[in-house]
Amino acid sequence: MDLLPDALASACLQQFRATPPLVHCLTNEVVQSFTANVLLALGAFPAMVVEPQEAAQFSTMANSLLINIGTLHRARAESMLSAITAANQAGTPWVLDPVAVGGLAYRTDFARHLLTLKPAAIRGNASEIMALSGMATMGRGVDSVDTSLAALPAARQLARQAQTVVAVTGEVDYITDGLRDVAVTGGDKLMTRVVGTGCALSAVVAAFCALEGDRLHHVATACRIMSQVGGQVSQRVAGPGSFVPAFLDGLYQLEILTY
Amino acid sequence: MDLLPDALASACLQQFRATPPLVHCLTNEVVQSFTANVLLALGAFPAMVVEPQEAAQFSTMANSLLINIGTLHRARAESMLSAITAANQAGTPWVLDPVAVGGLAYRTDFARHLLTLKPAAIRGNASEIMALSGMATMGRGVDSVDTSLAALPAARQLARQAQTVVAVTGEVDYITDGLRDVAVTGGDKLMTRVVGTGCALSAVVAAFCALEGDRLHHVATACRIMSQVGGQVSQRVAGPGSFVPAFLDGLYQLEILTY
Amino acid sequence: MDLLPDALASACLQQFRATPPLVHCLTNEVVQSFTANVLLALGAFPAMVVEPQEAAQFSTMANSLLINIGTLHRARAESMLSAITAANQAGTPWVLDPVAVGGLAYRTDFARHLLTLKPAAIRGNASEIMALSGMATMGRGVDSVDTSLAALPAARQLARQAQTVVAVTGEVDYITDGLRDVAVTGGDKLMTRVVGTGCALSAVVAAFCALEGDRLHHVATACRIMSQVGGQVSQRVAGPGSFVPAFLDGLYQLEILTY
Repeated sequence: MDLLPDALASACLQQFRATPPLVHCLTNEVVQSFTANVLLALGAFPAMVVEPQEAAQFSTMANSLLINIGTLHRARAESMLSAITAANQAGTPWVLDPVAVGGLAYRTDFARHLLTLKPAAIRGNASEIMALSGMATMGRGVDSVDTSLAALPAARQLARQAQTVVAVTGEVDYITDGLRDVAVTGGDKLMTRVVGTGCALSAVVAAFCALEGDRLHHVATACRIMSQVGGQVSQRVAGPGSFVPAFLDGLYQLEILTY
Repeated sequence: MDLLPDALASACLQQFRATPPLVHCLTNEVVQSFTANVLLALGAFPAMVVEPQEAAQFSTMANSLLINIGTLHRARAESMLSAITAANQAGTPWVLDPVAVGGLAYRTDFARHLLTLKPAAIRGNASEIMALSGMATMGRGVDSVDTSLAALPAARQLARQAQTVVAVTGEVDYITDGLRDVAVTGGDKLMTRVVGTGCALSAVVAAFCALEGDRLHHVATACRIMSQVGGQVSQRVAGPGSFVPAFLDGLYQLEILTY
Repeated sequence: MDLLPDALASACLQQFRATPPLVHCLTNEVVQSFTANVLLALGAFPAMVVEPQEAAQFSTMANSLLINIGTLHRARAESMLSAITAANQAGTPWVLDPVAVGGLAYRTDFARHLLTLKPAAIRGNASEIMALSGMATMGRGVDSVDTSLAALPAARQLARQAQTVVAVTGEVDYITDGLRDVAVTGGDKLMTRVVGTGCALSAVVAAFCALEGDRLHHVATACRIMSQVGGQVSQRVAGPGSFVPAFLDGLYQLEILTY
């Protein structure tokens, strides 16, 4: 399997910086502030608009839409469906983060329904991607006990089935459109001790889905940015507390992607 | 136009420190933690009480009330109206932050209704203030594409119409009661890369509206504190991540206001 | 009264690190991110699952449950009751943080009802514990104007009445099961200038309630961890902003508890 080439990733970052997208984020309650700060650090414009009619209206103005079901409840599910419907009508790409899907019934049914609504990309950990594709998993939902490589067949199947790009992330990230795979290395296990790193990655994936061109490479670049900066920052901080400001600074200063 | 004099701003800060207010914040989901930390750093007491009956009860105990419509939805709108009604009966001043008003229908109708309920002050960016006053704007709501100076006539008109103090903030902040204007300089564009700096400013405006005296100067002092500390901190941090802790420390240590 | 011995606290921390719990947090809107980061820094696994059916399902999978009523509203109260009922059926211990109870009617009624549902522990400030036990208090709910020592009789009575462990925290923390008391010193008033330190402590109390053994000592160890690390960090930071990353780093690095 090929790693995402440096030159391709850097070119994609330049394209992003030249046309920073407005990203509509319907995400979970816990990570909204960190998600917004990650997008702002990269130069994108985040916005969270939640009332169903407004969420629909805003999806047609935004350049992409993130749907994260971490703290799904009935009212927010209505907003999400309203936003997705409007996004699809307007041609706004939308991205699914199927947080903790599998073990919990309400969100699992909801996520399965969302698969029929043509997400541009899906980003999850191994357990989530396996559960969403219908494969068995060992997780309790919030912690992935499966490796991303073990989930790659499920990711490919899910990508073909939903005609989308799937990123299954972990120690190594695999990004697939069902026919082609790209791998992204980097990151650090310290990132698992900071809430929202995975959720924020999904928001960055959504932001990169606003770009014209090869979506497989755009999604891979989003993964690459987060794991490269996260990995580098982890080497020089004392713990998960100082990771957050250093990580946001690193995203803000990022100019090229090179191993 | 006059800048807010140093001596007046410093005296207002001393008055604030001597009687730190309890501020009831009904604000958007994304910025609640940062807003609370900004108020705490300045010595005020933030509280978020959201159930409609409790929100009403608490508005009569608090020294001021913030209404921020960034993530408005039906249930929270009910809480806001309940809190405002009780605040007005008890004489508790309340402040409106009309986030993204103009482009989105539900919140625009709601904000127009709130204008009839006697806000003590309104704080917004140029696009928001122009939209709220009924003038045309170019913004998508979340990003202000108009300058604060261009919005000053709208701010004056809005202040007269709603009998309130309006702060239209941007590279330069203008604060007006419709008859008198004050300008506040400072700040840094790095602050636009940190989520919630504007929303937190509105909370500080609400906190300063609890003071006895000339509200125009109190609102201007709130703007001055945020832009002075923000501008100074921006010069010595590496990016938006390290801005946040340094900014809160700066607010905590602030003793006098001087250019 | 005895201080919690170093050796006992350190042993309890080792036990915690050996079997890090999954903690279901139904907490207030303002502190969710900080709460999750505190638990992650200590090695525990936080999760916030809010839809009523899912909240019930997840309570049976989690090792403990936190109920914090800071931003209580009707829909979330339903989720909480659903989660508690399931937790009690599954034998999952749950912890109550009765934020601002006393002054506000809706949450006070709710918290009194929760007392009948067998919490494993209750953590509050002096005014909250006094109000919950039925004693008179001077507070407005969000700020404790009573000292923790003055609330100790109320804490003991509440512990006996609800057959639980009560931690009343302040300059000195007192932990009681109604028969035995333990005191914990440390901390710093800077911690009152950071939103969520008390709420995060309650989450850590919930995490420690997942351990087998003497709950009085487990709850006291949770208090000890937060006040020891918080007190040490406060000595070397410039303010409440830099407190947060340093505190999380300190929790992450914590190995032994010693005065």
